[in-house]
Amino acid sequence: MIIDCHGHFTTAPPALGRWRQRQIEAFESTGARVSPGELSIGDDEIRAAIENGQLKLQRERGTDVTIFSPGAGKMAHHYGDERTSLDWSRVSNDLIARVCGLFPGRFVGACQLPQSPGDALPASIGNSVAELERCVEELGFVGCLLNPDPSDGHWQAPPLTDRVYYPLYEKLVELDVPAMIHVAMSRNPALQGTCAHYLNGDTAVFMQLCMSDLFVDFPTLKLIIPHGGGAVPYHWGRYRGFMIDQGRPPLEEAVLNNVFFDTCVYHRRGMELLLDVIPQRNILFASEMIGAVRAVDPETGRRFDDTKYVLDSIGTATEAIYGGNALRVFGRLEGALK
Amino acid sequence: MIIDCHGHFTTAPPALGRWRQRQIEAFESTGARVSPGELSIGDDEIRAAIENGQLKLQRERGTDVTIFSPGAGKMAHHYGDERTSLDWSRVSNDLIARVCGLFPGRFVGACQLPQSPGDALPASIGNSVAELERCVEELGFVGCLLNPDPSDGHWQAPPLTDRVYYPLYEKLVELDVPAMIHVAMSRNPALQGTCAHYLNGDTAVFMQLCMSDLFVDFPTLKLIIPHGGGAVPYHWGRYRGFMIDQGRPPLEEAVLNNVFFDTCVYHRRGMELLLDVIPQRNILFASEMIGAVRAVDPETGRRFDDTKYVLDSIGTATEAIYGGNALRVFGRLEGALK
Repeated sequence: MIIDCHGHFTTAPPALGRWRQRQIEAFESTGARVSPGELSIGDDEIRAAIENGQLKLQRERGTDVTIFSPGAGKMAHHYGDERTSLDWSRVSNDLIARVCGLFPGRFVGACQLPQSPGDALPASIGNSVAELERCVEELGFVGCLLNPDPSDGHWQAPPLTDRVYYPLYEKLVELDVPAMIHVAMSRNPALQGTCAHYLNGDTAVFMQLCMSDLFVDFPTLKLIIPHGGGAVPYHWGRYRGFMIDQGRPPLEEAVLNNVFFDTCVYHRRGMELLLDVIPQRNILFASEMIGAVRAVDPETGRRFDDTKYVLDSIGTATEAIYGGNALRVFGRLEGALK
Repeated sequence: MIIDCHGHFTTAPPALGRWRQRQIEAFESTGARVSPGELSIGDDEIRAAIENGQLKLQRERGTDVTIFSPGAGKMAHHYGDERTSLDWSRVSNDLIARVCGLFPGRFVGACQLPQSPGDALPASIGNSVAELERCVEELGFVGCLLNPDPSDGHWQAPPLTDRVYYPLYEKLVELDVPAMIHVAMSRNPALQGTCAHYLNGDTAVFMQLCMSDLFVDFPTLKLIIPHGGGAVPYHWGRYRGFMIDQGRPPLEEAVLNNVFFDTCVYHRRGMELLLDVIPQRNILFASEMIGAVRAVDPETGRRFDDTKYVLDSIGTATEAIYGGNALRVFGRLEGALK
């Protein structure tokens, strides 16, 4: 079974974006709330969005299942207050649940969490625990997105290894659900989103994990660092050397029992590096489709995000990368597919 | 000739750090200034710092010249006001000039610029132009470090493509001097310095350049992105695809006439990727010694930052990478070595 562990509902019906726009504008102008009940999207609209988008590409490429989450950039946690993010998360996650219900076996949900920056962070982590539990227990989700920068480009939160996040990790461990580390949008003109802030978030969090004992406290916690691990595999020697300099355990021991990288690397040479440097048990197949890059690579005639084509051409990826590791890391996935 | 384009005076005599500490404390407590004249360092101290450090490694590794700049993390542009950074830059750059004078042919200077964050940015760029001119015209320097985040970890400045930086670019072009993009310290607990903020700065600036027409305005401006280009070569396909998505010119045309990557990649597989993906004319030999990582790699028995060993083992790097490109990019280097 070929499992794509990283897909976002970037093709959601426009009514979703319009609801979000109304939500933000109402809060900013008068502090008013817009009810989640005001959003109305028909099953046919969802079917059209998926059948002409992600499902079409799944069929063309021969992938079976996508772990499917709301648009990551659109999480935009800095807007409004913690209630804003809670309402928006519920709306977004409920829509993902409908996709999964309409296309059983093809899409399994991973939820957005209602994080908020600044003083609202602790309360928002409490809300995140509750929303995670709702999505897993009631909607059948198997994962979540965890944003290391809810300020959306100004890095105003403590590292993800801070104890403010511990209630969330306790719940993740209890539910046997992994988190994919994923920043949202960047509202900082110095940091472009998909090709700078995304990758920088991955790299920053890997270092947070290297320097902390988070996995001593949570030995069964599983975190996925997407986009091929940001800069990490390319600079693997730098990280190995840093750990020696700091008197820390080797990376294998310190992080590789708990951290996994996805295969969202959009060219063959980069993918080869990932496969050569990172143990195969730590790599999960993913494409991030339909997402960051939509163009066709003139060198291959395939879309840049067709990472299955790249992996297939290289030929050394095992079944573990294509699906076995995902079934291990997403502890509830096998049950969700029955 | 083997030219290391990226070395910092991380082994500077302790009196330098003590002066800086006094400068910061005086300003923070009473707004007072500490005179640069209060710093006293003897030639013997400088000789000892270099002979037991960078020069020893140059000889062991068989490199000839290092483009030498003040400690990058220690630039710490967020402290004090623009006068604080100006005094600190002069002190730091004057010390580099003394190293170059004591070891002619072995070290050639690149200067720190007196940047400041926030409202002080425009005035600090004016000061940077003057300090650059002083270092190049009076001290014989051939390059400079340009910090894209003078807030030191909170990304509060506009992108480097903003017009506030244009006076600096005009002067760089006029003097035929390149800038190495290099963040300073991170005061943000979420962003570790050498293995997160450094690489993220490189990645962020590459995207700033991809999205702008800076090189249309300054067709002869040359910028070096260190640390192997951050995440960029590993994600080269992502950037190629992004440019197509955005209707921008190909990377070769948009940036590769003006942007160069150094070889500070501390393992063989990463270095091979760099050599395979980036044209050789855009790669400059560098080690960042003595710097980010000081340990010996148990897999090779060599220090991680012995990038010459890694390049030599691979065997495909041309003379252009080892030195020829540096002589082309640093337009004043040949003259400085006479």
